Amino acid sequence: LPTKMKNTLKSVAIQLLILQLALVGNIFCGNVLIWPEDASHWLNIKVIIQELLHRGHNVSILAPSASILIEPSEDISAAKFEVFPVPYGKDEAQSFFEEFVTLLLDHKPTALTFYRFYQEMRKMMRKVHEFHKFKCENVLADQELMARLKKSNYDVLLADPATPCGDLIAVKMDIPFVYTLQFTPGLTVERHCGKIPAPPSYAPAVLSGLTDKMSFGERVKNIISYLVQDHVFQTWYGDWDSYYSQVLGRPTTQCEVMGKAEIWLIRTYWDLEFPRPLLPNFEFVGGLQCQPAKPLPEEMEEFVQSSGEHGIVVFSLGSLVANLTDEKSNIVASALSQLPQKVLWRHKGKIPETLGANTRIYDWIPQNDLLGHPKTKAFITHGGINGIYEAIYHGVPTVGIPMFADQPDNIQHMKAKGMAVGLDIQTMEAEDLVHAVKAVILNATYKENALRLSQIHHDQLLKPLDRAVFWIEFVMRHKGAKHLRVAAHHLTWYQYHSLDAIAFLIGCMAVFTFIAVKCCLCCLLYCRKRVRIIMKTKTE
Amino acid sequence: LPTKMKNTLKSVAIQLLILQLALVGNIFCGNVLIWPEDASHWLNIKVIIQELLHRGHNVSILAPSASILIEPSEDISAAKFEVFPVPYGKDEAQSFFEEFVTLLLDHKPTALTFYRFYQEMRKMMRKVHEFHKFKCENVLADQELMARLKKSNYDVLLADPATPCGDLIAVKMDIPFVYTLQFTPGLTVERHCGKIPAPPSYAPAVLSGLTDKMSFGERVKNIISYLVQDHVFQTWYGDWDSYYSQVLGRPTTQCEVMGKAEIWLIRTYWDLEFPRPLLPNFEFVGGLQCQPAKPLPEEMEEFVQSSGEHGIVVFSLGSLVANLTDEKSNIVASALSQLPQKVLWRHKGKIPETLGANTRIYDWIPQNDLLGHPKTKAFITHGGINGIYEAIYHGVPTVGIPMFADQPDNIQHMKAKGMAVGLDIQTMEAEDLVHAVKAVILNATYKENALRLSQIHHDQLLKPLDRAVFWIEFVMRHKGAKHLRVAAHHLTWYQYHSLDAIAFLIGCMAVFTFIAVKCCLCCLLYCRKRVRIIMKTKTE
Repeated sequence: LPTKMKNTLKSVAIQLLILQLALVGNIFCGNVLIWPEDASHWLNIKVIIQELLHRGHNVSILAPSASILIEPSEDISAAKFEVFPVPYGKDEAQSFFEEFVTLLLDHKPTALTFYRFYQEMRKMMRKVHEFHKFKCENVLADQELMARLKKSNYDVLLADPATPCGDLIAVKMDIPFVYTLQFTPGLTVERHCGKIPAPPSYAPAVLSGLTDKMSFGERVKNIISYLVQDHVFQTWYGDWDSYYSQVLGRPTTQCEVMGKAEIWLIRTYWDLEFPRPLLPNFEFVGGLQCQPAKPLPEEMEEFVQSSGEHGIVVFSLGSLVANLTDEKSNIVASALSQLPQKVLWRHKGKIPETLGANTRIYDWIPQNDLLGHPKTKAFITHGGINGIYEAIYHGVPTVGIPMFADQPDNIQHMKAKGMAVGLDIQTMEAEDLVHAVKAVILNATYKENALRLSQIHHDQLLKPLDRAVFWIEFVMRHKGAKHLRVAAHHLTWYQYHSLDAIAFLIGCMAVFTFIAVKCCLCCLLYCRKRVRIIMKTKTE
Repeated sequence: LPTKMKNTLKSVAIQLLILQLALVGNIFCGNVLIWPEDASHWLNIKVIIQELLHRGHNVSILAPSASILIEPSEDISAAKFEVFPVPYGKDEAQSFFEEFVTLLLDHKPTALTFYRFYQEMRKMMRKVHEFHKFKCENVLADQELMARLKKSNYDVLLADPATPCGDLIAVKMDIPFVYTLQFTPGLTVERHCGKIPAPPSYAPAVLSGLTDKMSFGERVKNIISYLVQDHVFQTWYGDWDSYYSQVLGRPTTQCEVMGKAEIWLIRTYWDLEFPRPLLPNFEFVGGLQCQPAKPLPEEMEEFVQSSGEHGIVVFSLGSLVANLTDEKSNIVASALSQLPQKVLWRHKGKIPETLGANTRIYDWIPQNDLLGHPKTKAFITHGGINGIYEAIYHGVPTVGIPMFADQPDNIQHMKAKGMAVGLDIQTMEAEDLVHAVKAVILNATYKENALRLSQIHHDQLLKPLDRAVFWIEFVMRHKGAKHLRVAAHHLTWYQYHSLDAIAFLIGCMAVFTFIAVKCCLCCLLYCRKRVRIIMKTKTE
């Protein structure tokens, strides 16, 4: 071909490329597959699903045939449910969780029961693991389902890593995936698989109960916490490695596959979270579900208004804990009856005998609308991240009664930021609860700090939900976000920590020092010899 | 006071607080003080000033009486110039920079000249240091100026740390400050004062010429680069420590004061920058000055159109390098004359003898408008960050002829990202330049990569300028951004690296091992003794 024609062809090719890239840059409607986790996680991811549907994307949800909350509902009616079978029913799932919570609530910390508690816990965890394995196998082994999914040409998979396997399904189908999570224990997955740095000197290990300002002893404890949690992760997740390798037909680890996440949407923000290093593909979108308060149901509004200048207290222990034990319920009810405020209590069990006239029990409460109500003075919560963020959003001082998972950590953060008082559900007496509620209402610093956090939360570049959806759409538009991915993923652990390079440099220095010292010694010996000879000659 | 009245008072106080916070959250018009650096830095910060003025803020600029570019102009006519005297004129400043560039251009790398070059360089650097010291002293010692500044109630100071002292003025006046910078050598200031982590295994030291994917040898080189640059910083900046302590009237270091920056606005983004860890108070706003192209002046547009299908090449060596040596100019002109494209060359010196008919020389060119012109095929640049970002914004493949400061690094990044060819100004011959320009025009991968980077650049959460101004306004609204500040600032270097905690843990392990071994040995000896006794009894 003559050069001119070649150039023309090249020019046409480049123009086509520009056009193609421009088209890719303007996807308005993509196909999103969701790999959700149950309970409060589902409530959070549902908000993202709603927004994705609102923006015109097709959303499919890979849902197990039985779960506590994952099911079609009016607010996401446009989403398609791809249901896969699991060998347990909804009741079993629900009762398993209740058992779990009861175990945590009944545990009294003595040496004898601790061992039993630990044994029970292990049994529970093994069951959780089995549940997860079921789910994973039932999707990946279902040829028909997998073929249907592949045919749907998904642009991105949004996975909650609390249920493993979403990443594996994405890699198997060769589509990019985005994570949504609050944290994994010890930040192990984020650190080892996502390569985010977490210096133990000021980044407290999650579940350690530490803040970012630590004494010497606390820093030692923090390092141990990281080591222990890493070890638990290794023994816990190691089991998955062979399964992942088998499914992908090549030797791999779960961590390697998890590290392929294009974007990590973290369900906290710097209002609640202690500032720590991040990577360009980590976006902190805590509170994405928060909204301005809507009006309350008429009956509820009347009750709230009847509180007068004292206002109300909102009390909920979240979506998992419907029932407290009778003993605990009575303690709580008797405490609430001593408050001058009216109390709205989300509670499903037997009505406690000690219930006061100022307290009303509800099966369900519009928590966000109540927290945004001008009469609300305080919030009593188990410390789930969704409720915590609603409290921050509306600037409501909080009493935390954490039970498990992220809850103790969340309350610890709120305490450190000065907007909450924490209580221990196991040792709590009625008067502790009364004192705590009175403290957060009457001591103005709690309200002040709650408002400060609220201000920080509201004053962001873009709303958390918009940021979350932007990155999901970005991954769809560009088939990933490789430009945000650190090169650390290509390194072994000793290369990552520069151990080989440092060893080499120390080796070089040692050799250099050795030679230098040898040379000096030789010179010295030579000089001494010369001096002796001279002395000898002189004396002779 | 009766309890009821106390409660009412508290409630009123809280309501007032809410009102106060709401008011603070709605500052629409603040007072901004600018501490600028000269030359291309000024062009960049001017864009931020324009936007701040556009949003209704009052902007004052602390400007030296003589500089190359810092002076009132039409586009920032609403800004107030607070001029302070410096003991040199504009010509001296200009000729100093020209001297500096000539030194860099004429340097041929032989051992003999290298020593002379190093000596000259030191002399230059000492002069830069003197210039900076003059500026700093002339502001801080001027009681009248300082009183006037204090009276102006600034809400924030925006400082370019390339000229030290902005931070000191802010701390002295007790106002929060924000930094705008691309980087400091070895990221020393960002790492040691700003506490940003930079793992040497994949975060290349600036000015090292390395990318994020390094071989073993390169990783060793990278560690050495960090160590050397840290050492240079220490010797270089150590001089300021006593001055800072003297001004603030308490023992401090320059690094400690620099670390008080509320926000660090970094003039790169993940299109050009290799992904690496960041902190919540670092915002990457590279390319904030980029805009869509405006129409060219008529005469220029005619010349551009006359290029036909071959298109044009844009050539500029930035605002500092007006003149090349005659020899270099002739080499460049002769190379350009061999291109089929028309060339627009920004050049101020003597017209080269070898200038071709296809090349036109201009005193000044509308660089951004030319790069955004559809006829533009390639850009020849010294690699200043402003020009680089205009090339990325418009997706134009580039030939880099870097000279000093950040330029070699910028070109190295563009080469690694596949949108540029780099040349060495000192060894470059005419045919090298011809080959390089032809390569980036005819090899489609350069254009492809340029368009990919351009896409990444355009597809951001918010435009870089909006993000930069958001954080400046945030600091004004909240009198800082303390919630984004890592607790690492309170730690000593050995605490930061957990050296004390690790030493303690190793010590504990050593003691434990020692005791365990001792116990085992004791048992062993006891057993042996028992066995012997038994044996003895038996034999007897």
